[in-house]
Amino acid sequence: MAQRHLDPTDPTAEVVTGDALAAYLRAQATEFLRALRLHRETGGANGGASARDRSSARESGAVESVDAARALRRSARRISGSLHTFRPLLDSGWSEEIRPELAWLSGTLGLEHAYEARLERLLLALQRLSGVTVFPAQAVTAAAAPEGPGGPAAPDPTPERGNLTVGAAKAGALLERQLTLARTRAHSTALQALGSSRFHAVADKVAVLASEVPLTPTAPTTDLRPLAAAAEERLTDAITALPLVVAGHPYNAEALVHGLSPDPSPHPQDGPWHQVRLLLRLHRYAQEVLHAGNKPVDVRLLAAGQALNRHRDASEAAAAAAQAARTPRIAPATAYALGVLHADQRHEVEAARFAFQQAWQKQIVSAP
Amino acid sequence: MAQRHLDPTDPTAEVVTGDALAAYLRAQATEFLRALRLHRETGGANGGASARDRSSARESGAVESVDAARALRRSARRISGSLHTFRPLLDSGWSEEIRPELAWLSGTLGLEHAYEARLERLLLALQRLSGVTVFPAQAVTAAAAPEGPGGPAAPDPTPERGNLTVGAAKAGALLERQLTLARTRAHSTALQALGSSRFHAVADKVAVLASEVPLTPTAPTTDLRPLAAAAEERLTDAITALPLVVAGHPYNAEALVHGLSPDPSPHPQDGPWHQVRLLLRLHRYAQEVLHAGNKPVDVRLLAAGQALNRHRDASEAAAAAAQAARTPRIAPATAYALGVLHADQRHEVEAARFAFQQAWQKQIVSAP
Repeated sequence: MAQRHLDPTDPTAEVVTGDALAAYLRAQATEFLRALRLHRETGGANGGASARDRSSARESGAVESVDAARALRRSARRISGSLHTFRPLLDSGWSEEIRPELAWLSGTLGLEHAYEARLERLLLALQRLSGVTVFPAQAVTAAAAPEGPGGPAAPDPTPERGNLTVGAAKAGALLERQLTLARTRAHSTALQALGSSRFHAVADKVAVLASEVPLTPTAPTTDLRPLAAAAEERLTDAITALPLVVAGHPYNAEALVHGLSPDPSPHPQDGPWHQVRLLLRLHRYAQEVLHAGNKPVDVRLLAAGQALNRHRDASEAAAAAAQAARTPRIAPATAYALGVLHADQRHEVEAARFAFQQAWQKQIVSAP
Repeated sequence: MAQRHLDPTDPTAEVVTGDALAAYLRAQATEFLRALRLHRETGGANGGASARDRSSARESGAVESVDAARALRRSARRISGSLHTFRPLLDSGWSEEIRPELAWLSGTLGLEHAYEARLERLLLALQRLSGVTVFPAQAVTAAAAPEGPGGPAAPDPTPERGNLTVGAAKAGALLERQLTLARTRAHSTALQALGSSRFHAVADKVAVLASEVPLTPTAPTTDLRPLAAAAEERLTDAITALPLVVAGHPYNAEALVHGLSPDPSPHPQDGPWHQVRLLLRLHRYAQEVLHAGNKPVDVRLLAAGQALNRHRDASEAAAAAAQAARTPRIAPATAYALGVLHADQRHEVEAARFAFQQAWQKQIVSAP
């Protein structure tokens, strides 16, 4: 599995030293500051209202703000990941101080978007499960077009719900209520975080990093490749421990085992996959450091990463559906729809594992 | 796709005439009468009580009776199917009279077993979804072993339910109630049918068939193979119309579309697959007539048929779970468990289609 250019014993390969790491960290820190400036300019006030409630006047600002938050998290993850992988080359006191702060920032800023995406995923699944195929443009057209004489009368004011059963519609409304509330809270928390002294301390540290990387004295002459190879090895070890043979058999029905378990967090089986997702990311960032953006995107690594993102999203959406079903005093039809939805998302989990297995096996086969 | 020995234009192939059909029908009629005698001897009184309630004294008689009913249906299906495929070779008035009667008999006798199997499938799925793996032997041991001091106290008198959530346990109890009732009714109907003059008329006709097959005058010199080839062509045409490309992509999520549809019979998509199941059976019986039991079992045809049986069973189990969820005044937790169960069985439907596609594609590839 070890790729040729990562082999530290190969004397012909070009040596990449701590200088490359410093350049990468400076570039990411600059990205971070740019995104932060953009985020402040656009106000960062897109939250608290669902996408469809936003007035178009605020729309572009909101979109830019979402992009800025994403860019902020993107560079925070890369800085944090590189500090982890290339730990021995950096001032340990400094990097141990900044890493948890970057993780806190990335987590806090990501939560709002995660709730929004989760709600969207679940509502789309409810429509799919009801045999309704609504494209956003269609929904708008249907809502805007006046009902002609003899045309079908819409009993429901929201046209996209017209064809749902009572149970599916109620389940959708319940999820929307719960996840919008969570999202609004996450938005407030993110706003508070961005105004906090804790955040300003992180921003100051990143500003320093943009010009001055605290390398150890020996770092400029140390080869980065053994550390990058170690990151890759941690990834491949974790993947070896995954039940890939089972995942490679379609319809193994593994992901829904414990689907009705009394355990409130019934999916410890997802843990190793989430872990691989993080290790895959660290491996990708280490490659970015080594190749300084000169290497073409590894399509299969990308496919594997996307499968694991989908795995995580479906796993969390399934948990949200199960959680909503525990709401007291809901109607049986609502609970039934949530049960179908939960199982559907757990099958998405299984499908994502299959997709990962397929992507990863390809990689092994094509390796020299 | 047409196999060589079925090609009616091939002059070197051995000609199979109406005499082979007559021999096959006589053999099946004899089987039918043998099974009927066995069924009368064993009393046919296994129904009305669930498997676990049967006392072991009645056990062997009940098992024999189930076997006898199965053998009765088995030969009834074969007679009926052969009359259909080789219609032109038989006295049309006679065969048009007996075919619906055989279908009625086979359907009436099969219903009781179908309800029993459906309940078993659903209860096993509920246990699987709860992460409980109970093998029948284990369950018996657990029930028989006295609880030692310090051993876990079983709050539930039925140990196999000990680890289910309230929702799963209640869903299981509801399904057991509903399907046992349906099964008891089917048992009474079957008993009534076996005592009816309608049944005696069928039995008399089959008794005549065992010695004397009403062939047309030209049948003994007519080649059976064009008719068998036509049956195979009907099968391959129906399979060509199936969405096999979709089914061949694992996790296509097709089977659960309409899973929450307000339509009470939301799965018209299953129809073509059920139809192929029947046509596959007719093709298999036609092969039996042609080869008089001298041909080894076609493993792939068998695999395809098993996949379609599983498709039918899962489709009907999913419908039973959805139906149970419409019971008034059930608890939300029960409805949730039934929703998960319904989705699980619909995924079984999808898995069965995938299995069929795999089995069938193999067959095409390996054909000369």
